[in-house]
Amino acid sequence: MAGSSLGELFKLTTFGESHGLGIGGVIDGCPPGLKLDMAAIQADLDRRKPGQTRLTSSREESDSFEILSGVFEHKTTGAPLAFLIRNNDHRPADYDHIKNVYRPSHADFTWQSKYGFRDYRGGGRSSARETAARVFAGAVAKQYLAVKNVRIVAFVSQIGSVKLSGFPDEITLDKVEASALRCPDEATSLKMEELILKTKAEGDTLGGIIHCSVTGLPSGLGEPVFDKFHADLGKAMLSINAVKGFEYGSGFAGASMTGKSHNDIFVLENNVLSTKTNFSGGIQGGITNGSKVYFNVAFKPVATLMKKQQTIDVKGNTVSLEGKGRHDVTVVPRAVPIVEAMAALVCMDHMLRQQTTKYLNL
Amino acid sequence: MAGSSLGELFKLTTFGESHGLGIGGVIDGCPPGLKLDMAAIQADLDRRKPGQTRLTSSREESDSFEILSGVFEHKTTGAPLAFLIRNNDHRPADYDHIKNVYRPSHADFTWQSKYGFRDYRGGGRSSARETAARVFAGAVAKQYLAVKNVRIVAFVSQIGSVKLSGFPDEITLDKVEASALRCPDEATSLKMEELILKTKAEGDTLGGIIHCSVTGLPSGLGEPVFDKFHADLGKAMLSINAVKGFEYGSGFAGASMTGKSHNDIFVLENNVLSTKTNFSGGIQGGITNGSKVYFNVAFKPVATLMKKQQTIDVKGNTVSLEGKGRHDVTVVPRAVPIVEAMAALVCMDHMLRQQTTKYLNL
Amino acid sequence: MAGSSLGELFKLTTFGESHGLGIGGVIDGCPPGLKLDMAAIQADLDRRKPGQTRLTSSREESDSFEILSGVFEHKTTGAPLAFLIRNNDHRPADYDHIKNVYRPSHADFTWQSKYGFRDYRGGGRSSARETAARVFAGAVAKQYLAVKNVRIVAFVSQIGSVKLSGFPDEITLDKVEASALRCPDEATSLKMEELILKTKAEGDTLGGIIHCSVTGLPSGLGEPVFDKFHADLGKAMLSINAVKGFEYGSGFAGASMTGKSHNDIFVLENNVLSTKTNFSGGIQGGITNGSKVYFNVAFKPVATLMKKQQTIDVKGNTVSLEGKGRHDVTVVPRAVPIVEAMAALVCMDHMLRQQTTKYLNL
Amino acid sequence: MAGSSLGELFKLTTFGESHGLGIGGVIDGCPPGLKLDMAAIQADLDRRKPGQTRLTSSREESDSFEILSGVFEHKTTGAPLAFLIRNNDHRPADYDHIKNVYRPSHADFTWQSKYGFRDYRGGGRSSARETAARVFAGAVAKQYLAVKNVRIVAFVSQIGSVKLSGFPDEITLDKVEASALRCPDEATSLKMEELILKTKAEGDTLGGIIHCSVTGLPSGLGEPVFDKFHADLGKAMLSINAVKGFEYGSGFAGASMTGKSHNDIFVLENNVLSTKTNFSGGIQGGITNGSKVYFNVAFKPVATLMKKQQTIDVKGNTVSLEGKGRHDVTVVPRAVPIVEAMAALVCMDHMLRQQTTKYLNL
Repeated sequence: MAGSSLGELFKLTTFGESHGLGIGGVIDGCPPGLKLDMAAIQADLDRRKPGQTRLTSSREESDSFEILSGVFEHKTTGAPLAFLIRNNDHRPADYDHIKNVYRPSHADFTWQSKYGFRDYRGGGRSSARETAARVFAGAVAKQYLAVKNVRIVAFVSQIGSVKLSGFPDEITLDKVEASALRCPDEATSLKMEELILKTKAEGDTLGGIIHCSVTGLPSGLGEPVFDKFHADLGKAMLSINAVKGFEYGSGFAGASMTGKSHNDIFVLENNVLSTKTNFSGGIQGGITNGSKVYFNVAFKPVATLMKKQQTIDVKGNTVSLEGKGRHDVTVVPRAVPIVEAMAALVCMDHMLRQQTTKYLNL
Repeated sequence: MAGSSLGELFKLTTFGESHGLGIGGVIDGCPPGLKLDMAAIQADLDRRKPGQTRLTSSREESDSFEILSGVFEHKTTGAPLAFLIRNNDHRPADYDHIKNVYRPSHADFTWQSKYGFRDYRGGGRSSARETAARVFAGAVAKQYLAVKNVRIVAFVSQIGSVKLSGFPDEITLDKVEASALRCPDEATSLKMEELILKTKAEGDTLGGIIHCSVTGLPSGLGEPVFDKFHADLGKAMLSINAVKGFEYGSGFAGASMTGKSHNDIFVLENNVLSTKTNFSGGIQGGITNGSKVYFNVAFKPVATLMKKQQTIDVKGNTVSLEGKGRHDVTVVPRAVPIVEAMAALVCMDHMLRQQTTKYLNL
Repeated sequence: MAGSSLGELFKLTTFGESHGLGIGGVIDGCPPGLKLDMAAIQADLDRRKPGQTRLTSSREESDSFEILSGVFEHKTTGAPLAFLIRNNDHRPADYDHIKNVYRPSHADFTWQSKYGFRDYRGGGRSSARETAARVFAGAVAKQYLAVKNVRIVAFVSQIGSVKLSGFPDEITLDKVEASALRCPDEATSLKMEELILKTKAEGDTLGGIIHCSVTGLPSGLGEPVFDKFHADLGKAMLSINAVKGFEYGSGFAGASMTGKSHNDIFVLENNVLSTKTNFSGGIQGGITNGSKVYFNVAFKPVATLMKKQQTIDVKGNTVSLEGKGRHDVTVVPRAVPIVEAMAALVCMDHMLRQQTTKYLNL
Repeated sequence: MAGSSLGELFKLTTFGESHGLGIGGVIDGCPPGLKLDMAAIQADLDRRKPGQTRLTSSREESDSFEILSGVFEHKTTGAPLAFLIRNNDHRPADYDHIKNVYRPSHADFTWQSKYGFRDYRGGGRSSARETAARVFAGAVAKQYLAVKNVRIVAFVSQIGSVKLSGFPDEITLDKVEASALRCPDEATSLKMEELILKTKAEGDTLGGIIHCSVTGLPSGLGEPVFDKFHADLGKAMLSINAVKGFEYGSGFAGASMTGKSHNDIFVLENNVLSTKTNFSGGIQGGITNGSKVYFNVAFKPVATLMKKQQTIDVKGNTVSLEGKGRHDVTVVPRAVPIVEAMAALVCMDHMLRQQTTKYLNL
């Protein structure tokens, strides 16, 4: 009810603040017997963590995790899997200057308004550092999905005004990771890098778009009315910090098409039902049809600027504020593993849910 | 878990099929003492129902409702409020021709795949007729919200290629309803009508976009991590039939902006905190800040075409199919009250939720 | 959250008041393909309904039901199964005399205190008439359980001071139904009948105890911490009107035993693990072990007396009150199908839940 | 869904195993601004922990806790409050001898049957050590309840065959804690101690009964149908390890009473509605009426015996087993703070729930 949990059967509850003891979570409902590859989990956390390149925040966090429960002899037991990622390089003092100020387009004011009280250190729980817990849980889900041959690949298709125009149908994780900006096209990636460096010099920030696709999902996932597959996917993406929009399949462009051009004609391919086109984005009536699921997630520019901005303090005085601390010009490349993780959580949850919907033939 | 419920404290569960006995729902958690204006509920149902004009489906449904429980002496009692909207003009025989066929971009195949069995009459429960229950519940929520001075206005901003370019900040419900297409600009509305008639003549269909705004919401609504206000709003919208995308505030366009232009500078207006711009869409860190909440919802074109299409039947044969029954060229104008209803449900639920989050000062 | 729903995967939401339009419910999560035996459902409703014999309330209700959705060609479709049992013999005027009075040991005062408002007609939703919806849903669950060879038998083991002393391990439904009081021992049943008639003559009322057993359950049902099988069973039973206590296996008597006498020694019987004794009541660590699950449910005497009682009205005046309307001397025999129904709901829900907990061996 | 969470608005999720890293939990929904008295939390944990006296297990655990999140400047922030109690004196090797054996009346077999796999060390998560997390969370809830003048007192009323016959209406916590066995009557406490020492010498074990009362609760708590106040209370108690029964108010004895003797006559006392007797146990129609809530919880004898028992190993061989490790003769005295904690969790949750049910008078 307080909104710190996601999922029905594979249920993640997260906790922790940016500059408190650490970030963590509890997964309740992980099936027993899943042998965990700890290195793979750490690799995903490393993809999200700050300090990866000169293009990202210089906060130094190892983001190493401790599994507190639910694993025995390297396998999940079916009991709650709790984990903790301690904060090492927390510097609460960096945030004293914002203690009494509402930063523009941050959650300071809304948090104060909601709770009457806030942990102002680094945004407390409203910090994107909370997403480390999502990446951990998503990495567990990915290991389950891999066994089921479900594959999730996300990449940066836009940063600021630089857009990737057209991309091949199949993009590998290697190709994505080859780019510091997680854009699988080298030329575009370079242009993005230029834009970032230029924007950084101006003390300004950037947003962007992440494209994600999921292949190998069985048909039949999703619940038909409120918990449509794409509705749960959309909510999961919209819950990521800084996200402003979600579209799947034809998305907003689909609004301009006609039915004749938009309808996906069914065909048989090797005795498997398939469609000639995939404007449906692999989902029809809220339920997967076995085709590739794909979607876009839009991120706003980072709100903390390394230049002066006018704002209001808690007493209503107009004050001037300039970003301190260690902040990214854009979070979009680091958000790629977060988008993947959220997709993995939704896919796994719906795969477990579908196990309970079987035609009885009684 | 089977996805027929929405909301945590104001919880709607819907039931019913397009060509069964009827459509209905149960609201659990409606606060006691709300005096219901039955005519206002009927008015919203009438705005959604088919057969309103020559531009919409000719199915004749009075969509009159029966309240089965939870109301005594015209007031809600706090007990579950159950309601039923009987189907009158159901013609299951209209659907015999699709019994064994998977219609393109419909839910026939996915439903069969999920359940191993389906009520094929008019799409059964995957029909948009299910949304009548949402409109009923939304109309109840609107009456609560009205008392709290929360106002929801939605309108059509695009049909097919015809877009409303720019619109005033304040649009009234009257202005919207003055247009058969629920587009508050007369010239654009006429262009949309032309396009619809032309498309109808071609046996083709159209999609579009609905813009919705909510004014009067208090600050502090929304839960900070997974149940962000816009995440719940997005899920609610994405759960409406034919929706392909959701964006709020700056939305997808925000991805191209820089932080300097995107940040909403806080100012005091009559001692109330406000912002110079509102790219945040009234939501910061997932929590409302008291400014107007606004968002766009993209709809795909209607999948049923009044022209021949190729598809596959349940045995894998390629067959030819042409729409029968009574179908809209576009559902977008009729979806306006549905979007409003879903917005009302989310707003009311979060207003109740916020009642449990009070600073104790202990 | 408002407490009108039970179950996680086989989820029942009920609605309706005693003297309103009717009583009903929605089952969300019923697996598709279950062929419903409507006569069997009606038979269970008949077992619960008033007016069965001179020993029960003379209210005349056919308790015939209408299935509103979720069934197609006699089979469940996987969509929400909504049903309605209309009230025929409702006589709200019978209750005018209690409109402003708080009946002793009834829910009038607490309801008023909770909601600030109440539907006083026949107790409104606090009436045991609400349990008709539970019996309907339980009858659906029983049909699923029957296919899985799970069998539920409940009977009256005590009414007032008359107790059934000792009973055979296997009691059939026929044996139970042969007794007007649903006590499978003829001599005891006669004594109970005598006591009821004598108590009725005195304008007084009686409580009692129902014993219930469930055989054929697989091992492994129940969740180990908060949703232990017996905890969910206990909550379901305690949610029945007038219930004051629940015990399973050795129950309260087990508190006086020593470990040596209480421990159930494991043995192999035809290669199946079994136990020499069954003080565990078929549940160990909150999880079924494959043995018979059994439990007792205690009911208080009916609160409405056909004799004068002193009480307080809504203005605080002391007033005298005598029962009108049609009331049972004891509800215990009619509660037998309710206990069975609640047991069926819990068993089915946990059987579906267990489908999602499978050792992966990955 | 996997059953590791309790509560709707004040939601506790627990994790951890007896001989793993530790035990902990996350509270989601704690209102902001509650100043935590850490010493009081530790005091409750100390009351539960082993090694308190020669009458309890000699396992040495400091049961000191670490708050991981949700507290800032000693106050709850409204964010998830996560906590960890590390295991110090875990000795997994003590359990090698049961690795392949199903201990009688333990959860070894059922766990294996459910998950296909188990953490056998000290019962893993089925160990009563999990209840430390409940006591922590209950101690937080108690601090909220104390401000609202709600007081919870539990004590041992029976161990084995030694029963406390009659007790005064008001019993203080001090009186309870003065007894090593938490029985507030000195003579009975001594008899219990004698019985425990005698039983220990025999290698046998004991069960018992805990009585608990809650005073100061406002009227109006509880939801009328499935989430009746006593149904949630009952489930919470039945979820404690070793519990076999729950009764409130008149309980099982109420089944033998007549309505005339059982009905609680309403009276006005200082303008407050009260009742002459309280067989209702402070709850009518599932909703609190402002009177004292009281109930009994029955515990079975400890299953681990310090004497030889026959059982079956995982291969089906009959084997002989004798308890090792450090076990209590009876857990009942140590369960007193657990019963209090579970009561506190249910009371706090329903107090928050009731905040959302207000008569609108619209």
